[in-house]
Amino acid sequence: MSELLTFPASSASMLESRLPPSTLAQGTHSRPFVTLTFATSLDSSLSLAPGVRTRLSGPGSKAMTHYLRSRHAAILIGVSTLLADSPALNCRIAGAARQPRPIIIDPHLRWVPDPTDKVLEVARLGTGLAPFVLTGVDSESLPAASVALLEQHGGKYIHVPATSSGPGSRMRFDWRAVFDALLHEHLTSVMVEGGGQIINSLLNPTFHDMIDSVIVTIAPTWLGQGGVVVSPDRLQDSAGVPVPAARLSEVSWHPFGEDVVLCGKLHT
Amino acid sequence: MSELLTFPASSASMLESRLPPSTLAQGTHSRPFVTLTFATSLDSSLSLAPGVRTRLSGPGSKAMTHYLRSRHAAILIGVSTLLADSPALNCRIAGAARQPRPIIIDPHLRWVPDPTDKVLEVARLGTGLAPFVLTGVDSESLPAASVALLEQHGGKYIHVPATSSGPGSRMRFDWRAVFDALLHEHLTSVMVEGGGQIINSLLNPTFHDMIDSVIVTIAPTWLGQGGVVVSPDRLQDSAGVPVPAARLSEVSWHPFGEDVVLCGKLHT
Repeated sequence: MSELLTFPASSASMLESRLPPSTLAQGTHSRPFVTLTFATSLDSSLSLAPGVRTRLSGPGSKAMTHYLRSRHAAILIGVSTLLADSPALNCRIAGAARQPRPIIIDPHLRWVPDPTDKVLEVARLGTGLAPFVLTGVDSESLPAASVALLEQHGGKYIHVPATSSGPGSRMRFDWRAVFDALLHEHLTSVMVEGGGQIINSLLNPTFHDMIDSVIVTIAPTWLGQGGVVVSPDRLQDSAGVPVPAARLSEVSWHPFGEDVVLCGKLHT
Repeated sequence: MSELLTFPASSASMLESRLPPSTLAQGTHSRPFVTLTFATSLDSSLSLAPGVRTRLSGPGSKAMTHYLRSRHAAILIGVSTLLADSPALNCRIAGAARQPRPIIIDPHLRWVPDPTDKVLEVARLGTGLAPFVLTGVDSESLPAASVALLEQHGGKYIHVPATSSGPGSRMRFDWRAVFDALLHEHLTSVMVEGGGQIINSLLNPTFHDMIDSVIVTIAPTWLGQGGVVVSPDRLQDSAGVPVPAARLSEVSWHPFGEDVVLCGKLHT
């Protein structure tokens, strides 16, 4: 079993105003509290290449990630990140009162759950929860073995209506439908962790008013060309002139070992 | 005339260890003290598109740039940045003891100096120095009118041997030859300001031991896809596996208004 991490109280208090209030009542909100969080290099890469797990930030940042997980009801990743990293998606902070629910965005059901997957392993050990998999595939078309395996571990599939922006284009979820599904499961806060497609999609101005908090860790490294880059789609004004895609407000920067942690909001 | 800028003494002192010593003696060094400095968005863009001047950082960062200029004998940019921005390339900090010498990297002589260019205007006004243009073009092939105009303003052309890495590829300078040329002109310190090609080329590991100081300002904005990006060429180990291209050591982060200033070294 992995050892427990500790996160200093002084660091925790600096993040407090950026986190879902601990008294967040169920049934009084129209969507979950959404925190977008990730770590990049100076050239805005999450990893050296798709599927290559890249250690970017220092040990302090790892503890921070697990502390943030302890403060959210759910943690959300895209299926590509699950397949690339096989993460445990649990919270290993000492004294955590509960485990967050892993949410996997998997429109096309690319993940075939297997008992050896870390996320199921920790569920069996009682050190994590089994995932809820959000998919566009209809309930009657789900593979029975996968459904059974997930449910044995306490997880399940949840159908979310997917949209396709044109013939041949990839099926995508509307983030509104995703957050509605979470609220329906009484998950009142969610920490979105990645990967690149998920993050870039949420940085689109359409979704800024759904995001309550942004926490970015930046490591003093350039990964170089060809990495998995966080950079939203280009935005243009009515005259076709490019304009900045997203700007944070209520900004604070917190040096953290060799890294810096940036906190801000996307909507004003 | 542009108004003078002030830079707080407290901010200056935080940068002091990152700057060329004020007692830097001529003739005792094999190359100039080189500071690499630039401002990017969170997605590592210098500007929204090539040739589009983009305000990224706050007013404090502008004062810092001019303070840094006051602490270097020369400031260096690529010809693309000169053509795109027509910068004055002078120092507008209050109480500056001297003006830095602008150095333009222009292998193919793309810049045709004109009396209305800002960099020549400030030279005439006595609020800046005329540039030294480093070019691969032989002295006898230089256009006489340009030579005369530059020299009237106190500037000149300097021939630097250029290399071409293959047929059809662009002529480039070896940075060793560039810094040799500066030292030959008794310029013992240089601040490299941009643009993207210049910065990415210096971030190549070949040149890390020539760079004494790196100062990066990061603004809490994503410019979006299609910007002019700082990201060095991909680096691979002997097995062909990608590895991080560059990492800073002796790192410090300094929150600065809405921006953060990152200081570090490329060589250890």
